[in-house]
Amino acid sequence: MPTPTYSLDDAIVALATPLAESALAVIRTSGPGSIELVASAFSRFSALKAASGNTLVHGFILAADGGLIDEVVLGVYRAPHGYTGEDSIEVFCHGSIPGVGRVIERLLEVGFRRAKPGEFTLRAFANGRMDLTRAEAVSEVIAAHTEESRMLALRRLSGALADRVGELKSGILAALAAVEVQLDYAEDDAAEDIELDIAGLGSIERSLRALASTAGRARLFRDGARVAIAGRTNAGKSSLFNLLLREDRSIVSDVHGTTRDYIEEWLDVAGVPVSLFDTAGLREPGDRVEAAGIERSGRVIGSAAVVLYLVDATGGLDDGDRDFLASHCDYTAKTGVAAGPVVIPIWNKVDREVPASPPGFIPVSVKKGEGVDHLLSVLGSVLLEGSAGGSSADGVTVASERQQALLERAADSLASAIASHRAGEPLDLVAPDLRDAVDALGEMTGEVSTADMLEEIFSRFCVGK
Amino acid sequence: MPTPTYSLDDAIVALATPLAESALAVIRTSGPGSIELVASAFSRFSALKAASGNTLVHGFILAADGGLIDEVVLGVYRAPHGYTGEDSIEVFCHGSIPGVGRVIERLLEVGFRRAKPGEFTLRAFANGRMDLTRAEAVSEVIAAHTEESRMLALRRLSGALADRVGELKSGILAALAAVEVQLDYAEDDAAEDIELDIAGLGSIERSLRALASTAGRARLFRDGARVAIAGRTNAGKSSLFNLLLREDRSIVSDVHGTTRDYIEEWLDVAGVPVSLFDTAGLREPGDRVEAAGIERSGRVIGSAAVVLYLVDATGGLDDGDRDFLASHCDYTAKTGVAAGPVVIPIWNKVDREVPASPPGFIPVSVKKGEGVDHLLSVLGSVLLEGSAGGSSADGVTVASERQQALLERAADSLASAIASHRAGEPLDLVAPDLRDAVDALGEMTGEVSTADMLEEIFSRFCVGK
Repeated sequence: MPTPTYSLDDAIVALATPLAESALAVIRTSGPGSIELVASAFSRFSALKAASGNTLVHGFILAADGGLIDEVVLGVYRAPHGYTGEDSIEVFCHGSIPGVGRVIERLLEVGFRRAKPGEFTLRAFANGRMDLTRAEAVSEVIAAHTEESRMLALRRLSGALADRVGELKSGILAALAAVEVQLDYAEDDAAEDIELDIAGLGSIERSLRALASTAGRARLFRDGARVAIAGRTNAGKSSLFNLLLREDRSIVSDVHGTTRDYIEEWLDVAGVPVSLFDTAGLREPGDRVEAAGIERSGRVIGSAAVVLYLVDATGGLDDGDRDFLASHCDYTAKTGVAAGPVVIPIWNKVDREVPASPPGFIPVSVKKGEGVDHLLSVLGSVLLEGSAGGSSADGVTVASERQQALLERAADSLASAIASHRAGEPLDLVAPDLRDAVDALGEMTGEVSTADMLEEIFSRFCVGK
Repeated sequence: MPTPTYSLDDAIVALATPLAESALAVIRTSGPGSIELVASAFSRFSALKAASGNTLVHGFILAADGGLIDEVVLGVYRAPHGYTGEDSIEVFCHGSIPGVGRVIERLLEVGFRRAKPGEFTLRAFANGRMDLTRAEAVSEVIAAHTEESRMLALRRLSGALADRVGELKSGILAALAAVEVQLDYAEDDAAEDIELDIAGLGSIERSLRALASTAGRARLFRDGARVAIAGRTNAGKSSLFNLLLREDRSIVSDVHGTTRDYIEEWLDVAGVPVSLFDTAGLREPGDRVEAAGIERSGRVIGSAAVVLYLVDATGGLDDGDRDFLASHCDYTAKTGVAAGPVVIPIWNKVDREVPASPPGFIPVSVKKGEGVDHLLSVLGSVLLEGSAGGSSADGVTVASERQQALLERAADSLASAIASHRAGEPLDLVAPDLRDAVDALGEMTGEVSTADMLEEIFSRFCVGK
């Protein structure tokens, strides 16, 4: 399998864990000779060279002059096993920032080169350890912002999508095989054309389109949505912002295990990763600084999928509130497609003596945390309803634009084949469409691939995977 | 070994890598039954239960209902081998933030509890896998900010300090044994007191004090030093700040391997971790905001070990510069101990037509990067000269306050024993001092330990180690 910049016949190294002070770090290597190369910088080189695959070996990484670099445990994998299907070593060393640098430096010294993004997974694909739908799922599993989106990607990683595509393809292949046999005979005599199973092929076409249509929702789960909090000054915007963040953070902080934690910037709303934006109070601009803030708020609101619009119920609605709500699409307005963000109006401070909330408003008390669960469930519904495309009954989805386009190409070619056959066209005009449908599905799993296509896919991975 | 809050007879779990999106994450478990507990949530539970120590097993972590949680490789360690000396599993899973949370959640469900800081290393100590000098070195290796400080800790981790302490202790023990034999006989008859090897014991005392005196420098390498950049407005402070940071960052960024990198805040100057502070221009305060900035600068300068004082050579020295330099200790002034920071005066912008630099100034052009290497080498010398205590010829050092205090206690007791013996005191007055010297060294390595002492040591570790 040729690639322009990813070579497959050398030994590569990369840090596979985040570069930060921690108990452990993992440095990953792979490629022909990688076990011998690591052994040349290892205290127990004979033990390592003799080690079987899937074993752990304890020792020290040594400098060229024999000095200690770090105490490590090595995970040994031998071809054709392990993640890449090549000889491979995973170095488990101390999670020290300068230490990780020194170990990698030493491995470069003995002959490794730095791995490019996705290069370990590219090798796994090239060595037949996984098809392309699984390979693409690897980076989606890692980058998932919520558990829901991770589970969708994990289903693809475990082969559910590849299996489904394989089934659909075999149906088309059966028809194509019959057509090709017929065409071979037709060269010899004027045998009558066979009848294709139009109903069966039509069902396959519908399945392809249904699978392609899961991409909208799958991408919502993968990429998330922007949600802005707006309203007049003192409506409670910052309090709501902090409340939503804090409730979510308390879950994240439960799994913290290191001194320097990553701060997650996504909220999980019904499984959809939500990035939340607070905005300056919406009111008549007083001076230049404020005007700049309000202009920025306008941009934030314009780029959001949903706006949580807070009204201070103790003050009631004013003209500014009415103008804003009138100029944006209410989430209760079921007709038409929203051009801008969908607005969820919120009647805040109901813990105090206030008028009943107007129709369509969600009554909450941010201060007491009342009504916030209901608000989140409405937000979740709005986000899911707003996503183009359907869901999948059995959880098999596609998220990648590439896969969606290939499914649509396969469906279109199949539809064209069905139409030609129905119109009584000869089989040698039907065959190319069937073949293209099969090829499109082959590209999905990587049976048919080009170097450019592979580079495009794997260059979006992180290094070390 | 009893501890008030660290129990040793249950199974513990912790994330051992930083919580961030990355190729891999490592979740560490240890304790009686940990292999069986993980197996109860693992797809290939029979293969795992049958696995030998030091092997790798591939499979899936499963939910209670059998659903997939993540695809993982398990590192299996069986007592008395592995880091902790207990049955232990390391889970290598995808570096997904929600995924790591789910795996840990599942392990808690099947019976693990969250590990406390340093609890894996505490168990390694309790199970005789390492003495206390090695255990303390583990967290120092991880937290080291420069390669130099990491190597000092790594020498301790590899046992160099424990060996040295062992040698010195055995010398004292020999004397103590001779004394105790003599005391046993003395109960029976009036045998003459033996002569102790005063010269040998004196040499041991000097070695103990020399080792204790390495703590000043070792702590400089461990904890680092604050360096402030000061000078008038437009002297080039921010440019120097950025130049020093950029040169250092380019090294760090070479080893980056993840999409979200940790930003290292330390510069490496001659192996000393330096945290660099820029200050506001020093001039007459014009308004309140500026006054606040200048007050802050004063505090930064006051708490710094070294001040890099920049003068714009095109303008020359003014009264403000002269006042500042006169009121602080010049690095060329060799007499006395500096009460405040040591000042290194810098003659900046020598790429232009400027007067020759005054005596004691370091000529540089921050713009062209000229003279900066010399500046760094002067800074390194000033930092190292400023650290109390000596260096160690063979690289064996102590950094912990606890170890330094114990070495000094052993030396003092030994000195007292020597003095008593010289003064002709009876051996039963000499013996307690010798015993105390032996006990102090025993506390260093943990042969003598208390629960409070262990809790004090390990609670400062990060979780997962």
